[in-house]
Amino acid sequence: KNILETKPVVYRQIAVPQPGAKEYCTDSGLVVPSISYELHKRLLSVAERYGLSLERRLEMTGVCASQMALTLLGGPNRLTPKNVHQRPTVALLCGPHVQGAQGISCARHLANHEVEVILFLPNFVKMLDAVSSEITLYTKTEGKHVSSAKELPDSPVDLIINCLDCHEDTFLMDHPWYQAAVDWANQNRAPVLSLDPPVSGQGHAVEAKWTLSLGLPLPLSEGVGRVYLCDIGVPQQVFQEVGIKYHSPFGCKFVVPLHSA
Amino acid sequence: KNILETKPVVYRQIAVPQPGAKEYCTDSGLVVPSISYELHKRLLSVAERYGLSLERRLEMTGVCASQMALTLLGGPNRLTPKNVHQRPTVALLCGPHVQGAQGISCARHLANHEVEVILFLPNFVKMLDAVSSEITLYTKTEGKHVSSAKELPDSPVDLIINCLDCHEDTFLMDHPWYQAAVDWANQNRAPVLSLDPPVSGQGHAVEAKWTLSLGLPLPLSEGVGRVYLCDIGVPQQVFQEVGIKYHSPFGCKFVVPLHSA
Repeated sequence: KNILETKPVVYRQIAVPQPGAKEYCTDSGLVVPSISYELHKRLLSVAERYGLSLERRLEMTGVCASQMALTLLGGPNRLTPKNVHQRPTVALLCGPHVQGAQGISCARHLANHEVEVILFLPNFVKMLDAVSSEITLYTKTEGKHVSSAKELPDSPVDLIINCLDCHEDTFLMDHPWYQAAVDWANQNRAPVLSLDPPVSGQGHAVEAKWTLSLGLPLPLSEGVGRVYLCDIGVPQQVFQEVGIKYHSPFGCKFVVPLHSA
Repeated sequence: KNILETKPVVYRQIAVPQPGAKEYCTDSGLVVPSISYELHKRLLSVAERYGLSLERRLEMTGVCASQMALTLLGGPNRLTPKNVHQRPTVALLCGPHVQGAQGISCARHLANHEVEVILFLPNFVKMLDAVSSEITLYTKTEGKHVSSAKELPDSPVDLIINCLDCHEDTFLMDHPWYQAAVDWANQNRAPVLSLDPPVSGQGHAVEAKWTLSLGLPLPLSEGVGRVYLCDIGVPQQVFQEVGIKYHSPFGCKFVVPLHSA
């Protein structure tokens, strides 16, 4: 008789206050429900209250998103000392908001890893603090920074990372710089990774091959491609405090693929 | 005739102002020279001036150190939904300094990944801000916090992460709490990962199986075990500014093993 009692595996380890929206599952079958943008925002603001500052989150998101991008670019086969003359090129398209700041952090970590980085961020007279401080750090890398879509390369890049859309400002799309960046992305043949895109029905002017959602997924539209989830370091009791019963779906990883359940 | 001209591989891509000290190399043969503690400190302080704050560095170090620890613990084989009743246990021994704060950040990320975490940090009347804010965040996880070595478990844990030593205060070792934690670690049979230990001849009261150095390695003593290097996000021009000619030795990774050259 086996003395190790095997408990049945519980696949529903995350329970949200308003279920019924879109659900995903991980490779190992754990159910990951989506949450509304409002709840997601509340989760981050409670986390901030305990010290998980925007700055920390930007750093962690930049590290994990760049790790995902490095894998998509071919990982160890592509980035070896013997391959210095074939370094991959990544274009990051960033708007003047937190999503853009996340993109700039990712751009810095990619440039730190000797990827050829071209960062598109239009010039603004007044910039969000989080965006300016990311830019200050980014300019200390060898990465390029362009403020006009005309300066983006004519030839296909290896990967486009789209951080143009913000969760709150739907008027962004009316700006000429936004449309110019979208047109460039749609003409370039490179696959697109969308970083923290807004909920279904908003943004998404660029079709993505992959999407990286942060913490817990929002209900996303079909155009976002294959969805991945990124750990952003929110402790369990913070989830509890906003009414989410939570166990990590990440296992030993910080980025995991999700499937439509 | 091959039209792709193959450039010779350059293995010495990092040059430091005062060479001659210990050198390491990566798996692919890139040479990674060690730097003095004074130069390491200057590197971090220039990086801070451009916005790579201690807070950011703590977050990145915590993420990367926990990724290494999760691999050491058995990675995907150990942390699956089917293994919830066999979760690994990690004890982190932390002093009241930046090295301790790095350990607490690592502890939080491990606890976030459902590892059983026991954090040892003695009680102090006045604590470094960086340490207090890490503790505030850590207490929102399910991880345990003990302030006396007597509360540490009698049975062997799966991994000990040693963050007791600081680079500047050699009097630490005279404190009873320090000695009690060292005695516990030396009696417990668990393998030890040393996080950011000081240079040769200082600290190291606990023999390590692995050591994780940050940014560029210090000249370390023999008792540190196998040395790994952790990317901490310092951009290239910051290295330049302190007189280091630098190209990333990390390839697509954020933690790489080093070998004595």
